[in-house]
Amino acid sequence: MTHSTTESAVGASPAPNVSHSITVRLEVPAGGTAVGHLTTTVEQSGGVVTALDVAASRGDALRIDLTIAAGDTHHADRITDALRAIPDVEVKKVSDRTFLMHLGGVIETASKHALRNRDDLSMVYTPGVARICQAIAADREDARRLTIKRNSVAVVTDGSAVLGLGNIGPHAALPVMEGKAALFKTFGGIDAWPLCLDTQDVDQIVEIVAAVAPGFAGVNLEDISAPRCFEIEARLRERLDIPVFHDDQHGTAIVVLAALRNALRVVEKSLEDVRVVLVGAGAAGTAILRLLLGAGLSDVVVCDVDGIVSTERGDTDPTLCWIGENTNPRGVTGTLKDALRDADVFIGVSAPRLIDAADVETMADDAVVFALANPDPEIDPSLARQHARVVATGRSDYPNQINNVLAFPGIFRGLLDAHSHGIEVPVLLAASEAIAACVEDDELNADYIVPSVFHPEVHHRVADAVEKAARAVEKAHEA
Amino acid sequence: MTHSTTESAVGASPAPNVSHSITVRLEVPAGGTAVGHLTTTVEQSGGVVTALDVAASRGDALRIDLTIAAGDTHHADRITDALRAIPDVEVKKVSDRTFLMHLGGVIETASKHALRNRDDLSMVYTPGVARICQAIAADREDARRLTIKRNSVAVVTDGSAVLGLGNIGPHAALPVMEGKAALFKTFGGIDAWPLCLDTQDVDQIVEIVAAVAPGFAGVNLEDISAPRCFEIEARLRERLDIPVFHDDQHGTAIVVLAALRNALRVVEKSLEDVRVVLVGAGAAGTAILRLLLGAGLSDVVVCDVDGIVSTERGDTDPTLCWIGENTNPRGVTGTLKDALRDADVFIGVSAPRLIDAADVETMADDAVVFALANPDPEIDPSLARQHARVVATGRSDYPNQINNVLAFPGIFRGLLDAHSHGIEVPVLLAASEAIAACVEDDELNADYIVPSVFHPEVHHRVADAVEKAARAVEKAHEA
Repeated sequence: MTHSTTESAVGASPAPNVSHSITVRLEVPAGGTAVGHLTTTVEQSGGVVTALDVAASRGDALRIDLTIAAGDTHHADRITDALRAIPDVEVKKVSDRTFLMHLGGVIETASKHALRNRDDLSMVYTPGVARICQAIAADREDARRLTIKRNSVAVVTDGSAVLGLGNIGPHAALPVMEGKAALFKTFGGIDAWPLCLDTQDVDQIVEIVAAVAPGFAGVNLEDISAPRCFEIEARLRERLDIPVFHDDQHGTAIVVLAALRNALRVVEKSLEDVRVVLVGAGAAGTAILRLLLGAGLSDVVVCDVDGIVSTERGDTDPTLCWIGENTNPRGVTGTLKDALRDADVFIGVSAPRLIDAADVETMADDAVVFALANPDPEIDPSLARQHARVVATGRSDYPNQINNVLAFPGIFRGLLDAHSHGIEVPVLLAASEAIAACVEDDELNADYIVPSVFHPEVHHRVADAVEKAARAVEKAHEA
Repeated sequence: MTHSTTESAVGASPAPNVSHSITVRLEVPAGGTAVGHLTTTVEQSGGVVTALDVAASRGDALRIDLTIAAGDTHHADRITDALRAIPDVEVKKVSDRTFLMHLGGVIETASKHALRNRDDLSMVYTPGVARICQAIAADREDARRLTIKRNSVAVVTDGSAVLGLGNIGPHAALPVMEGKAALFKTFGGIDAWPLCLDTQDVDQIVEIVAAVAPGFAGVNLEDISAPRCFEIEARLRERLDIPVFHDDQHGTAIVVLAALRNALRVVEKSLEDVRVVLVGAGAAGTAILRLLLGAGLSDVVVCDVDGIVSTERGDTDPTLCWIGENTNPRGVTGTLKDALRDADVFIGVSAPRLIDAADVETMADDAVVFALANPDPEIDPSLARQHARVVATGRSDYPNQINNVLAFPGIFRGLLDAHSHGIEVPVLLAASEAIAACVEDDELNADYIVPSVFHPEVHHRVADAVEKAARAVEKAHEA
């Protein structure tokens, strides 16, 4: 099963990685030199052999499964061609490991109870279940105790802004939402189900999510394009009595703030004093801005494609107006490059290759650069490191990955455990602090400002901090 | 955790059953006679002790968990009171086993792959998942192969007609839909997820189900009141390219037809020759009628609250008009009692206690009575048996339970495996025949006309028959 993708790289391939690994089934003569040629051929083609299994041996021939990490799909094809060219070697089948893992999807449901006999049935289903229904009909809040609403989150998208792939629609978005649901379960113990909506109409999306809300304790909006995502989120928050969280906004903002706190610990500057340049006024950028302001940042300059946002510019877009009024206290004007001069921190959630090493050189000493555009950052991180003290990206192949997986499982775990009816800024700040605090003083350095998503404590600590903050918010509302 | 329900019975309680079982935690003196009194007290109160566990022993006292089957919740309260009245016995806590099983819901999600390290993440989620998305963006049909759409069914309700409880709303309907999802998984290997909609507007329900369809390979409508369910189903079938099945209609019809086939095997009559009286022209009744006609029944008389439906009656309701035109070939008029005279088969999907033993006596020899109103049948099955040869009900405490669980898991399994785009009458008939055929000639008798839902083969056989029929239908459409 090989799949050609729309990857455009035809020249140099990226380094071999497991997300492009293939398993090649080969038939080779036994006892000859062919087996030895397999691994050297892969290596000469720039691939990495990660496993070699002899699947079957029959007298004069061996059936071998060779698992190989390639750089991309073109590279995988080149490696396969090179194997095919070895005399006496026959390529039987090429399997793409990532595609194999996604066959039939990556999540499933399970019954919590074995249904082995009539007794089991009569409690899980009819007639016993009628009493559970009656209890909830008498007191709707019991649904949070006696149903999956205790632990369920809807992962909702319209497929309009999926990863860096754009508006690929609800069917093609499904694998991402499933992966997200798998992460929710693995790291948060949460039962999440993907809902990929076949509409991109804001009113319809709001109606649909509101209508399915009875079965869920939370809504995670995902990969919905700006500015539609703002309105959808705002209207759903207004309407529903369960938390609505747009991960591309708030998840990103939480992890950026956590990373920034720790980067500033490394360079010994304080959030209240630094000058920050934020590039990108979309979903993520706006949410980052709001959370940074909520955390006490005072000097931030926002740039978009037209340069520095300021009240001088006469923007009419409501978001840009709001940004103009609430940022840029020194009234700077001009381009991104103008903004960067003497700045302490660059945060980019925008587009590839916007700045270069020379721009970073104009920043203040001990500069911090978060180049988060995915998959290609605003500046190559190795170039950025020439002049910046701390560099972070969204990529998994560099240190300091700003990864939302650090946030959303623990956040929803905490919200669900607090039986939270909404989500507010103190909760986001608490999550961010919990993530930052997972990096101990003796662990902290320029290449370790955020914990790994496999940190043994991070999701629990986020959940505990969020539950506490959410309970405080709920209590304040009741008072 | 005790729950009072709206059960009205205050006099005689039904027989003890597991769906009303409780676990009572008691503290009793060690070494005395109190322990011995526990079981006798329960028995004298009409309960059945199903388990006695000594949970803890500390010197002079024992902590005992006593599990007891009661007839209903009032009965459970009376038993608990009787235990409380035993000298030296202290009742610490009463747990309702059915409620315990529903705590936090009866289904959950699972990740199919362990996410232990960065490699796992990079294939299940980013960056690897992007290639899966691209493949589906290039060919949408790949979603049936590379996502949960391969195996997922939406269980959709608006809570308007839940079990026999009526319009209790989406929150209170959730336990039933969860139970259904657990059955889908256990008996069909299907990943079903409940969607309980907070709207009862037909247009909205159609829009919502159509919008969530990308993530599912089938839709199971459930507990939606008639006549709204007809329109919702018809419009969704028109609009979607996945099967839409209203279990209350088609599931019931399939199992009724299977049971009728076998009942007629018992009494040695043929479907083409018998006279059938069908009572109830709602969702289930209409679907049963259509399927029976599709199977070759020719002489059927339908009754509703106004008596025999006929073209003479001048009905304006479109369903009743259709019934008048397509049934009652002998032009019978009058009441249900008139219709019953000399009939071979009574099928009731209507209301409790509509007929009595004398009515059954007027039926033809070797009469068949299906009294399916739930929980109280049209006639007490033991009364019916005085004059009928074969009696079936919807209840689990009599032989011959007409239970939809026999049908829906295998039906959807077969539809999913056939990658079916719809569901048509040949598929329903195939499912019905497969269920009936599970009762072998040497097993068949008046008390065994349908297999148990735990029959080791029934769900597989239904799935196989449905897959075959569905493939034939798809092929016919392609041709």
